[in-house]
Amino acid sequence: MADQLENSISEERLWRVLMELARYGATPRGGVNRQAFSPEDIAAKRHVVVWAKERGFDCFQDEFGNLFIRRLGLEPDLSPVMTGSHLDSQPTGGKFDGAYGVVAGLEVLEAFEASGIETRRSVEVVAWSNEEGGRFPASMGSSVFTGVCRLPAVLDLRDRRGISLRDALSETLNALDVPRRPMDQVKPHSYVEAHIEQGPILEAERIPIGVVTGIQGIRRFEVEVVGEEAHAATTPRRSRKDAFLAMVSIVSALEKLIDDPADLFRFTVERCEVFPSSPFTIPGRVTFTFDLRHPDHDVLKSVADRIEEVAARSAKGCSATVNVIADRAPILFDPQVVEIVAAQSETLGYRSKRMHSGAGHDAMHICKICPTGMIFVPCERGISHNEAENVMPGDLAAGARVLAGTLLALAG
Amino acid sequence: MADQLENSISEERLWRVLMELARYGATPRGGVNRQAFSPEDIAAKRHVVVWAKERGFDCFQDEFGNLFIRRLGLEPDLSPVMTGSHLDSQPTGGKFDGAYGVVAGLEVLEAFEASGIETRRSVEVVAWSNEEGGRFPASMGSSVFTGVCRLPAVLDLRDRRGISLRDALSETLNALDVPRRPMDQVKPHSYVEAHIEQGPILEAERIPIGVVTGIQGIRRFEVEVVGEEAHAATTPRRSRKDAFLAMVSIVSALEKLIDDPADLFRFTVERCEVFPSSPFTIPGRVTFTFDLRHPDHDVLKSVADRIEEVAARSAKGCSATVNVIADRAPILFDPQVVEIVAAQSETLGYRSKRMHSGAGHDAMHICKICPTGMIFVPCERGISHNEAENVMPGDLAAGARVLAGTLLALAG
Repeated sequence: MADQLENSISEERLWRVLMELARYGATPRGGVNRQAFSPEDIAAKRHVVVWAKERGFDCFQDEFGNLFIRRLGLEPDLSPVMTGSHLDSQPTGGKFDGAYGVVAGLEVLEAFEASGIETRRSVEVVAWSNEEGGRFPASMGSSVFTGVCRLPAVLDLRDRRGISLRDALSETLNALDVPRRPMDQVKPHSYVEAHIEQGPILEAERIPIGVVTGIQGIRRFEVEVVGEEAHAATTPRRSRKDAFLAMVSIVSALEKLIDDPADLFRFTVERCEVFPSSPFTIPGRVTFTFDLRHPDHDVLKSVADRIEEVAARSAKGCSATVNVIADRAPILFDPQVVEIVAAQSETLGYRSKRMHSGAGHDAMHICKICPTGMIFVPCERGISHNEAENVMPGDLAAGARVLAGTLLALAG
Repeated sequence: MADQLENSISEERLWRVLMELARYGATPRGGVNRQAFSPEDIAAKRHVVVWAKERGFDCFQDEFGNLFIRRLGLEPDLSPVMTGSHLDSQPTGGKFDGAYGVVAGLEVLEAFEASGIETRRSVEVVAWSNEEGGRFPASMGSSVFTGVCRLPAVLDLRDRRGISLRDALSETLNALDVPRRPMDQVKPHSYVEAHIEQGPILEAERIPIGVVTGIQGIRRFEVEVVGEEAHAATTPRRSRKDAFLAMVSIVSALEKLIDDPADLFRFTVERCEVFPSSPFTIPGRVTFTFDLRHPDHDVLKSVADRIEEVAARSAKGCSATVNVIADRAPILFDPQVVEIVAAQSETLGYRSKRMHSGAGHDAMHICKICPTGMIFVPCERGISHNEAENVMPGDLAAGARVLAGTLLALAG
């Protein structure tokens, strides 16, 4: 049966569905801009619903617009095995980040059908809402689903154009002709997420399957630098409190702080806003956010603990206020699920490598309520969150085959 | 008559009118946000129109919303002597920048009335539209008036919220119940602008009057840094092309380039935009604008000529494109007007100092079509383009007295 299932995974079909989804929010440079709850995001979800209805699978959405496609098991009352990822993208995202995990799940359902496989437990493919975090805080669909985040606590958040999450969400909920299934009505038996690596390791080592053992820790910071506005044309340097140059000085000092020959730190300033941002005025205030990661929790902590002092010392007469906006310890996935993924790779004859995920994924929330694992496939040059993101179709199919075997093992 | 005129200038009245205007766009921190063509800007202009009508002065506006208040001379067919400045402000501007020049002009008209002074030429107080440049390029009212800039060439410009200059302008034109006087119908005989210094020199040297001899040169640049978007969590430092860190490196190098013990350079990054500005994505593109000034044209040129090379060398694997967005040589005002201002200061017993203006003013355009001068008064700590901008009422009155004498000398 394993052979038959393996052969039922179609590389061409998987690629075709991915390319169909990539039309929603397609950018001229070959990527996608399909931000959470946007018309493009809704259209992608609708495409999946149509796909599911054509094949007779049930669809549900929960209070956060998380979308579930169910292939009924022989014992429908048992908690379902879930797989999936997300359909939303970065503003200048690629065609595979997230979408691959959803489409790989759909391909597994196709393969189960084609092979006439019946599972004890139902298998559900889920598209979690709002994973990327471009508009609203990241991984919210999965975090609301698991109760890490309470829905009423976030509904009044607004994106940068002032649109509330409440309004954005209700557009999605109303747009899809899919019955509502409250979150508390279903608890997954287990969860496996397929995803592109978004890093260079698998490609460099020519390994098709990453057996993901966990997710590295992260600290995110927001810094507010306050100086003094003054006329750009007249104010001598010695009298200036230029918040922009203070920011430049602080960021330079932080770069020195994480300078490490092993190149294990990940330090990224993602956003920077300058006030008043007007010609002829020295900026009086600059805010910026940055993301700091390191695989070793203790190293990360020791550097993170020094940031406030470094910022204050480098602020050139301005004040610098540092706030921690995220602090997540490393996550370890369920050893049994990890072993199943590794065993399936071996059975199918794929080389695999156990590895941590650098990035966060919906799996980091779901793992709090059920045994969870992830499967990585290589991506070109490790480039992701970029319109140029690319993956070899054969690698996508390999990942889907390992996923199929894993889901079959879990669903019985 | 000079004594009578001097006594007719009222410090209290001048201050009161300034504080009345400061209500339009007043900010909680004591400044004003009265950007060009905004409802607040229109309200300030309307206040001046009401002021003028109450006193029986004619008002006109031209095609760009430049507002003129005319006190008729004995020979109305002669070209008028003009004075004024602007009523628009920076987004976080002060109560005196621009508004002082307009209110000082109005106070002179009051004083002429009170002293029963008749002039040969008409005297007109003008409020030029859109001097600050926060929404649309700076000093546009005066530059359109003098033909430096053609109106049709700019009407389709849009501010950062997407509002076209055409629409913004027509709101102003329709809001004011003031007859239209086409620009080509009037050419000033001469122009004198009173303004706060916006620098620390007069206050530091306890000199009430700056006799402005000209305006220093300026270069403005826009730099576009292009790197490569990638996932913030996973991409090793050696594989990154981080446009933000490249910008930090370029700005640091530019700071070194203008490092000068004499502190004569004015280097200011005013705006910086980061793309895609999304969590978990390494910025692939950063644009920033900066302003570079030096009193010596040759020094400025020699540094400006090196910027492209310095930016390219510091861009850390990204590309850096440098565009010059403004290049204005130093301006010298009419020697005769400068002498009249100096002589009036002396007659009135005020210490004065000949000085260049660091900042640009509407006078830099008007000086191309008629003899022009400027009068500076000290401002607290030289702080301007800041809500905390402050000036001593006595200094404002001193400037207005010098202005009154100068206009009287010019209008005959």
